Amino acid sequence: MKIEKPSIPNGTRDFGPAKMLKRQFILNTIRNVFEKFGFQPLETPAMENLSVLTGKYGEEGDQLLYKILNSGDFLSKVQPDQMKEGSKSVTYKIAEKGLRYDLTVPFARFVVMNQNEITFPFRRYQIQPVWRADRPQKGRYREFYQCDADVVGTDSLLCEAEIVMMINEVMARFGLSDFTIKLNNRKVLSAIAESIGAAGKEAALCVAIDKIDKIGAEKVKTELIENGFSSEAVSMLDPIFSINGSNAQKIHELELILKDSTNGKQGISELKELFELLTNFGLSDHHVLLDITLARGLSYYTGTILEVKVNNSSITSSISGGGRYDNLTGFFGLEGMSGVGFSFGVDRLYDVMEDLELFPKEVHATTKVLLLNFGQQTLSHSLRILSKLRQQNIKSEIYPEDAKIKKQMNYANKKGVPYVLMIGENEINEGKYQLKNMETGEQSALDFEGIVANLKD
Amino acid sequence: MKIEKPSIPNGTRDFGPAKMLKRQFILNTIRNVFEKFGFQPLETPAMENLSVLTGKYGEEGDQLLYKILNSGDFLSKVQPDQMKEGSKSVTYKIAEKGLRYDLTVPFARFVVMNQNEITFPFRRYQIQPVWRADRPQKGRYREFYQCDADVVGTDSLLCEAEIVMMINEVMARFGLSDFTIKLNNRKVLSAIAESIGAAGKEAALCVAIDKIDKIGAEKVKTELIENGFSSEAVSMLDPIFSINGSNAQKIHELELILKDSTNGKQGISELKELFELLTNFGLSDHHVLLDITLARGLSYYTGTILEVKVNNSSITSSISGGGRYDNLTGFFGLEGMSGVGFSFGVDRLYDVMEDLELFPKEVHATTKVLLLNFGQQTLSHSLRILSKLRQQNIKSEIYPEDAKIKKQMNYANKKGVPYVLMIGENEINEGKYQLKNMETGEQSALDFEGIVANLKD
Repeated sequence: MKIEKPSIPNGTRDFGPAKMLKRQFILNTIRNVFEKFGFQPLETPAMENLSVLTGKYGEEGDQLLYKILNSGDFLSKVQPDQMKEGSKSVTYKIAEKGLRYDLTVPFARFVVMNQNEITFPFRRYQIQPVWRADRPQKGRYREFYQCDADVVGTDSLLCEAEIVMMINEVMARFGLSDFTIKLNNRKVLSAIAESIGAAGKEAALCVAIDKIDKIGAEKVKTELIENGFSSEAVSMLDPIFSINGSNAQKIHELELILKDSTNGKQGISELKELFELLTNFGLSDHHVLLDITLARGLSYYTGTILEVKVNNSSITSSISGGGRYDNLTGFFGLEGMSGVGFSFGVDRLYDVMEDLELFPKEVHATTKVLLLNFGQQTLSHSLRILSKLRQQNIKSEIYPEDAKIKKQMNYANKKGVPYVLMIGENEINEGKYQLKNMETGEQSALDFEGIVANLKD
Repeated sequence: MKIEKPSIPNGTRDFGPAKMLKRQFILNTIRNVFEKFGFQPLETPAMENLSVLTGKYGEEGDQLLYKILNSGDFLSKVQPDQMKEGSKSVTYKIAEKGLRYDLTVPFARFVVMNQNEITFPFRRYQIQPVWRADRPQKGRYREFYQCDADVVGTDSLLCEAEIVMMINEVMARFGLSDFTIKLNNRKVLSAIAESIGAAGKEAALCVAIDKIDKIGAEKVKTELIENGFSSEAVSMLDPIFSINGSNAQKIHELELILKDSTNGKQGISELKELFELLTNFGLSDHHVLLDITLARGLSYYTGTILEVKVNNSSITSSISGGGRYDNLTGFFGLEGMSGVGFSFGVDRLYDVMEDLELFPKEVHATTKVLLLNFGQQTLSHSLRILSKLRQQNIKSEIYPEDAKIKKQMNYANKKGVPYVLMIGENEINEGKYQLKNMETGEQSALDFEGIVANLKD
């Protein structure tokens, strides 16, 4: 047998127990909040037909799709001279399927395929990995989880308000208190494009403005000029970039600047309604910020856009984002299905929680108590105690061999098991067992009820 | 934009809310039992290097691996004349990664790569999808979940006993009471091969015997003769096939038949110890059956083997199986790491639960109460009530538009929401809201506390 040192593909990760427990804490928390708000789970296959995936993420996205080689004699579909046309042209002849690139396109595909069975408005959440053949970097992986929640089939701004409330609740459950939910509206950005005489160029405007946090206003203006915006147009952005004050003050100034634009009036009215709904929900204003320079790069947004940042962490990139889209299912022939959704980035959240040391201590342990194994003489008694502990729903295990006590203790320590239970012959005779708290070192002789009471806190 | 009717790849499935909720019930139950027994979670990447996967599942398995096309100019690694060698030869030049085929090989790979950090004995569970380019059939899919639990780093039979106890608990939690856990030992099968003068041929013997349930003893014997076993050898199987009685009686008869075989004695001693451990755990005998014809096709098992069947369902295939292997990590250069593990088949379990109507009613609903939307006048009051309900951790939502009441009621019905809450102007004035039980049609006027009391059952 040829033996080589095993490895895993670049940009992918194993999650051992310690990381898994923390990730499960994050995912379960998000799942619970999604369900509390009436969202229902969906899962789609890892593999999608390439006809579903290509053309949805721009040209770069098509390159980053993982393609799956057709089974069997895949070369039979390629003429020998077609080979010379190069890899790009051959790809779609030998690969018909690809790996999911995000959760939004498969969701749109699902809605279109099941439009007659679905009860609209449809609230779905989806927590699954996605794959991108990106260059691996710190914090950027080729396989990573997304947690999406979307409502489709209504243009009610209540959905946006609910999303803000969900984000708020997730943050609270994670113990994150210093965060900002930035809001804006694509219609306002369109109106700004109109107002500077660059109507129809809002896509380029959004892509540039999206970088304002990273590169600053001056460089954004330079980029716009490079992209064909007139310097006159760009200078007209100054009063807009400098709008500040409370959310209400910003809205008031915007109303003045964009008063002649239908888009502008519509966008501002939507923002006003959203802030009012949030007030009705009882949300205090200080986590929610109208940010007129928030643009979100992705092109399919048409209304509200949002992004979440944690302010007191060294991880500065956003941990969540989303927005309203009016025609995502149009890709697959179903027009006029407005929706709004957002996504949590699990890896970012994980890094933030680590950074701020917010993972609860209980997350780390699976087993609550380890029964030491003193060999044949006491085994049958120990196994009966073990069964009784498990009947009490206490996570427990016995060391499988009668190894040296030190080795067994070591195992408990390394695995982070908080209690060790010793059932030797003396203990059996007395009906009291030794329970040792591995953190304090404290040890007490207790009967079964006493042990359960200690372990069930 | 070119629009085509979207579809999903053959043999893959979307899981909409109704199915997802049931699947989550299954997976969460299994996860809880695994954790209660001290098993810790692991996740490995969907993509593995093909060097890790190939050669582990036999030649047929290699064919059934999904291979992922290398990114970029994948053809650059193929010489034009190599193309003529055909698909098989070209595959490994243009694809370096493949999709996970099971959870066992990635687990062995993980153990070898992390052997210095892992605390042995290592109890891990893993719940993830796997992919096989198999011909899709009823009940056979190209993407399906496996739920594995394994202990490696000890040959203690306590681990086998724990696995039987876990299966027992999972079955109890699912309300499955008429099931059989079949046990056998590969060493006994080896000894049987020896005893009929076919030492070393136990692999072929196992593959044939494995089919005894499906095709009967006579056809198994025919197959063995076709595979080069002498008819004399095959006729010697008769007394073994006809062993019956209680587990203890079977063991007693086996001891007589295999008394001259070292393997036989070892295997029988292991079976005896396992049954004794199960008794010590307090497990009654009637779910556990020594089945000398249980063989398990896979070749890496070396000791205990087991399989679980539900007896009162029309789904007759096994829902779980596993066994002990002495050298799985040997594939990757780490010798002598004995382990034992098993796997639940989620799709089979799902089908059995549907067949026997065992899914609890509560599984079906996510939202507990829908607040009807009566429009602008009452919205702000409704939103405050909604927030208060959610503070009580009650899964609740409001219909996002002030649509016709019939439409909103219809939505609640279709989504399976058990309660509807009506907050109109009269209700607000009186401080009592109308709560309607959608199943009974019963409607009561209740204050907020009364509503919470009704919804928190």
